[in-house]
Amino acid sequence: MAFVWSSRVRFVDTDASGRIHYTAMLKHFEYAEQEFFRSLGFRYTEPHALGYGFPRVHVECDFTSFVAYDDLMAIRVIVERVGRTSFTLAFDVKVEGRHVARGKIVIVCVDTATRQSRPFPAEFLTPLTQGKAASN
Amino acid sequence: MAFVWSSRVRFVDTDASGRIHYTAMLKHFEYAEQEFFRSLGFRYTEPHALGYGFPRVHVECDFTSFVAYDDLMAIRVIVERVGRTSFTLAFDVKVEGRHVARGKIVIVCVDTATRQSRPFPAEFLTPLTQGKAASN
Amino acid sequence: MAFVWSSRVRFVDTDASGRIHYTAMLKHFEYAEQEFFRSLGFRYTEPHALGYGFPRVHVECDFTSFVAYDDLMAIRVIVERVGRTSFTLAFDVKVEGRHVARGKIVIVCVDTATRQSRPFPAEFLTPLTQGKAASN
Amino acid sequence: MAFVWSSRVRFVDTDASGRIHYTAMLKHFEYAEQEFFRSLGFRYTEPHALGYGFPRVHVECDFTSFVAYDDLMAIRVIVERVGRTSFTLAFDVKVEGRHVARGKIVIVCVDTATRQSRPFPAEFLTPLTQGKAASN
Repeated sequence: MAFVWSSRVRFVDTDASGRIHYTAMLKHFEYAEQEFFRSLGFRYTEPHALGYGFPRVHVECDFTSFVAYDDLMAIRVIVERVGRTSFTLAFDVKVEGRHVARGKIVIVCVDTATRQSRPFPAEFLTPLTQGKAASN
Repeated sequence: MAFVWSSRVRFVDTDASGRIHYTAMLKHFEYAEQEFFRSLGFRYTEPHALGYGFPRVHVECDFTSFVAYDDLMAIRVIVERVGRTSFTLAFDVKVEGRHVARGKIVIVCVDTATRQSRPFPAEFLTPLTQGKAASN
Repeated sequence: MAFVWSSRVRFVDTDASGRIHYTAMLKHFEYAEQEFFRSLGFRYTEPHALGYGFPRVHVECDFTSFVAYDDLMAIRVIVERVGRTSFTLAFDVKVEGRHVARGKIVIVCVDTATRQSRPFPAEFLTPLTQGKAASN
Repeated sequence: MAFVWSSRVRFVDTDASGRIHYTAMLKHFEYAEQEFFRSLGFRYTEPHALGYGFPRVHVECDFTSFVAYDDLMAIRVIVERVGRTSFTLAFDVKVEGRHVARGKIVIVCVDTATRQSRPFPAEFLTPLTQGKAASN
């Protein structure tokens, strides 16, 4: 069963066009990602404490319809791909059933000390694999 | 001759990883875009006053290296494509000669009242065309 | 009975210090304000549509303790003062019972066309007065 | 001679009211602070590397006039007070000679490891004292 996070468009998310600023959509993707992993029992915590981190190496987003202040977005999170040191999350967003955006983020697991990519630690690989299975 | 905008990474642009937050890079793309069009004599002003606006329908970015607080980014702006109602801007970013990011944004010209795409007004098409020529 | 909004600290809210960036706290105040008025039956909508808006003329905040990524903040909203054309909201924030911040915002009702302050419209004065009564 | 930083209002700084979002003004204060200390020969760097940091314990701002997209703000920075472990910066902002905002920020020097306040290190006290003298 897919994970869907409800996220409200805030006033600070808008710009003088009257619509959501396009970078704000990506912030909401991040909120959805954080809650998706929480639902799987994994809580991102302070990178220095963990010894590894999750920088993004690629992001893309298509905006398909108007999003305004106070809209309640339903953000579906899908684990699209799990590699050895990176994974891809896809996002699909609707407002009251109307499609408004879709995006993709490629995230790499890096060792904080060396800044080099590294295989996922077990405590992350398990929920990630479960998340992938649940996405299908 | 290509347009390059120098943009400083601010503290608010960073996150607890110690690096730039990936959405902050896209904000700097926007600063570079605003200054690029200013250099061509076009000043984006309040959309309601103009009767048209420039929503983004697609954005993508690859992050190729570490960007930290106080880094001075050199953001090159290229007009990659000019269509009838939309255009594509490409961005290429270096910090002290080191490549850190590249991105692309597709922008549509819309009529503010109808929210439909429309051909570029002459006052914008001229600088846009000049920008395209200068990018080559 | 006081209104309390639970708001999660996001990764984009943090900075390279590992703590919440101080401007992010003020964004959470805004989320709490938006939900406080929703709880009273008033929904801020697009200012041009309403013909009036609510710019902030004063803001202040004291940060009393450390706030980190993923902390769940309990933000209490109090209507401290209701004037003829302006009102004051106070915010008190705790994380797991520990006090972390308190703030105050003075908001003016302005006519969008003239940019002058104006008395509150009835549809806003009623919930505002109820909110004040509930704060005591 | 007072330090004045010129800072451009960006599109992402605005909201659906058509004006600058009030939290964006505080971001520009931070840009001005960063450049003010650079002008004095001090460069804020990564807190963990230094072993100390500068959290804000108080912020306040009065917004005295309309600020719009693309406005060029002249932000004057004044060192108002230097204590043993904290200092106060004041900001005064104009757009084309018109006063638009004034603010104040109280900043504490803390030891990163203990999270306790500590006297300013010499490499910071010297430029801070120079900045105070220049403000008068």
